[in-house]
Amino acid sequence: MRPQALRGFRDYLPEEMLAKDRMLDAVRSVFESYGYPPVATPALEYAELLLGKYGEEGEMLLYRFLDNGERDVAMRYDLTVPLARLIASHGSLIMPFRRYQIAPVWRAEKPAKGRFREFVQCDVDLVGVNDASADAEMLLIGQDVLRALDVEKYRLRVNHRGILRAMTRILGIADGAEEGAFLRLLDKLEKIGEEKFRGALAKDFPQIDAAGTERLLAIVSSGGAPAETLASLEVLLGSDPDGALAIERLRQTMERVSAGGRLDTIVIDPSIARGLSYYTGIIYETFLEALPEYGSVMSGGRYDGLVGMFAGRDLPAVGISLGVDRLLSALLEIGSFESLSTPAEVLVVQFSEQGSADAFRLAAQFREAGVATVIYPEAAKLKKQFQNAHNLGIPFTAVVGESEASRGTLQLKHMASGEQVEVDVAAAVARIRRAGRGTE
Amino acid sequence: MRPQALRGFRDYLPEEMLAKDRMLDAVRSVFESYGYPPVATPALEYAELLLGKYGEEGEMLLYRFLDNGERDVAMRYDLTVPLARLIASHGSLIMPFRRYQIAPVWRAEKPAKGRFREFVQCDVDLVGVNDASADAEMLLIGQDVLRALDVEKYRLRVNHRGILRAMTRILGIADGAEEGAFLRLLDKLEKIGEEKFRGALAKDFPQIDAAGTERLLAIVSSGGAPAETLASLEVLLGSDPDGALAIERLRQTMERVSAGGRLDTIVIDPSIARGLSYYTGIIYETFLEALPEYGSVMSGGRYDGLVGMFAGRDLPAVGISLGVDRLLSALLEIGSFESLSTPAEVLVVQFSEQGSADAFRLAAQFREAGVATVIYPEAAKLKKQFQNAHNLGIPFTAVVGESEASRGTLQLKHMASGEQVEVDVAAAVARIRRAGRGTE
Repeated sequence: MRPQALRGFRDYLPEEMLAKDRMLDAVRSVFESYGYPPVATPALEYAELLLGKYGEEGEMLLYRFLDNGERDVAMRYDLTVPLARLIASHGSLIMPFRRYQIAPVWRAEKPAKGRFREFVQCDVDLVGVNDASADAEMLLIGQDVLRALDVEKYRLRVNHRGILRAMTRILGIADGAEEGAFLRLLDKLEKIGEEKFRGALAKDFPQIDAAGTERLLAIVSSGGAPAETLASLEVLLGSDPDGALAIERLRQTMERVSAGGRLDTIVIDPSIARGLSYYTGIIYETFLEALPEYGSVMSGGRYDGLVGMFAGRDLPAVGISLGVDRLLSALLEIGSFESLSTPAEVLVVQFSEQGSADAFRLAAQFREAGVATVIYPEAAKLKKQFQNAHNLGIPFTAVVGESEASRGTLQLKHMASGEQVEVDVAAAVARIRRAGRGTE
Repeated sequence: MRPQALRGFRDYLPEEMLAKDRMLDAVRSVFESYGYPPVATPALEYAELLLGKYGEEGEMLLYRFLDNGERDVAMRYDLTVPLARLIASHGSLIMPFRRYQIAPVWRAEKPAKGRFREFVQCDVDLVGVNDASADAEMLLIGQDVLRALDVEKYRLRVNHRGILRAMTRILGIADGAEEGAFLRLLDKLEKIGEEKFRGALAKDFPQIDAAGTERLLAIVSSGGAPAETLASLEVLLGSDPDGALAIERLRQTMERVSAGGRLDTIVIDPSIARGLSYYTGIIYETFLEALPEYGSVMSGGRYDGLVGMFAGRDLPAVGISLGVDRLLSALLEIGSFESLSTPAEVLVVQFSEQGSADAFRLAAQFREAGVATVIYPEAAKLKKQFQNAHNLGIPFTAVVGESEASRGTLQLKHMASGEQVEVDVAAAVARIRRAGRGTE
């Protein structure tokens, strides 16, 4: 039997991992430009800390076991509960507290195509303030992340729990379980279409009459540019106090986004509900125009109850979570990232024991000039070394024989065209740079 | 009870994590300049894969459990066995295969000061070639890593298993267990001193007579500059065939290091033995001159049997492992890294609901210019906001009131000196840049 990765888990080989790291570097750099530092929390937590946080279904998916000291432990299921625990454990953190965390989480889901039991989450959160400024900051970060990843065409769809609350109240839906069921149905509207939605609505919510149904569909289809949508929602829902507050809050938020970024990527969409019951204010999802079938690549919202839970004090919070693997697949499909199997830009050939020092000297000069360089790590047949450069997709090879060494030159070969020139190191570096692939 | 991190585990707060990420970014960039791409393997592997690899003591430290599907699994204990498994699982990898991996590993060690059950390993390995070029590449990478981290003064101590083998053979020590015990004792020489070493030697290895002991001490104290040391080892051990081969191999290696880097940081040290039995050729350790008590911060060697084990074919390998946490502590102590609790360089004050748009506009301009910027996320008392900048160690604050907005200026305050000037954005950016702290 050939050794395999554990069922439901996977390796990331160089090609995918290089792209993933480039993507995460760009994301980190945006987070840090907003003053967010990274933190890290352990892969394992006391199980009791995680229990009761993810619902019955989630709890079934925990990797939970007794450690060697008979402690009941579980592997990290998300980054939000660890954030709440971290804040409670370190009493002296300065509020408002900003942090991001990029780390794998583990869920024993039924394996399926593209779904794994280990995946990387990337969360950015601002804790300690309930203000439109904090909400706006998240939307700006989201815009800047996509800009940093060269994604131009996307829609940030924004809603507010207060709008949903006003809507359900007007429709006569009770708070709690009934509201939850309604929001889950609403979440499916886009997927199942209006006809099926009407059917399910009539079946599960008989209290909504024909006029109510029309009113609901008018509201949820009123989405669009912020100012217009908020004006029409004012008419439709402004009589409800929660609705009025939510509309005003979104207005303040959009004013800040408009000052600090762009409004044209944002739509107010009263139909998005986000499944998670812990959201209390703004909620958002992000869809790529070219690939809507990937679903939301970046989502989140305000959740004012969760973080303060462990600390036993009021700690409002707002955050974004990036679907790292989903976003990576999308970017590779869009072509935002070149797919490389090596960072190397040139392979220095080593064709004799005697010539090794020359090869090492040349490789050092290339690296000094910022060119990522591999040296073929033994003296082997030239053909084998060229083949290796070709197989790895390294764009250039460099050979320095005795005569080149004496002239201070090298033979630089462009692998794709086969073109070979004798140049000095500076000229070789310039050619490699011009070919346009760099690690910087 | 206040929620705590699991016993033996720890959080990394912003201050430490910012430094750690900066360090790892520098390390990654060196690895990539040598053409090494990253890979990732799962946190969990089938337990049978890890069993029998780490000795009885190591095996006791595995986090091993039955998953929900009754599979016998264990958390990653190092990055070397997963590398061997990865190569076996993916038959088509191009050889020679270079990769680096930076990832946490888990060992249920007895918790002690500075020792945790989760720690990050950072391994770089070159698989598929047994050649002095590959050995030299590792020493060059090691030198470049320390250079990238601004560490000037260190010693790369190099030895070769063949030298140790020749030494033990000349002393009449049998291969296998007895050699292992001898090498473990030799590893302790520096720590316990010559006197205690002589005592332990006489007790455990009675076959070594007085002349043998003097000869051994002469060999192990012959360390120093490569050329001289290899010449004297030639005299002392050259009669042994393994010794002669090892000396020649180190000569070839040093020739390449000299061409591609520096020789003055390297000493050949016949006293270093590295505990791990799987090393088969060159071995090395790295000590910081300012902080020798930290032990080796970067070590490794050639291990030709281990990686091919799962793949069932000959796959010689050489690698370096960085002691990430140890190195980080050392760098913070040396002062190579500023210790920051936020990446932000300026805090934009928000003092009224009406002025929010101006504050957001200014923050966006700062970020556009590459200045990491936080905005205080609600309108609060000025004093509170300045205090927040002070507490976080943000060097500048910026205020844009109505009159500044109308003039296109802002009030920029340097927190340390208290100096405040009214300037436009470009001048503010220049001042912040000049103060010299950046995320780029």
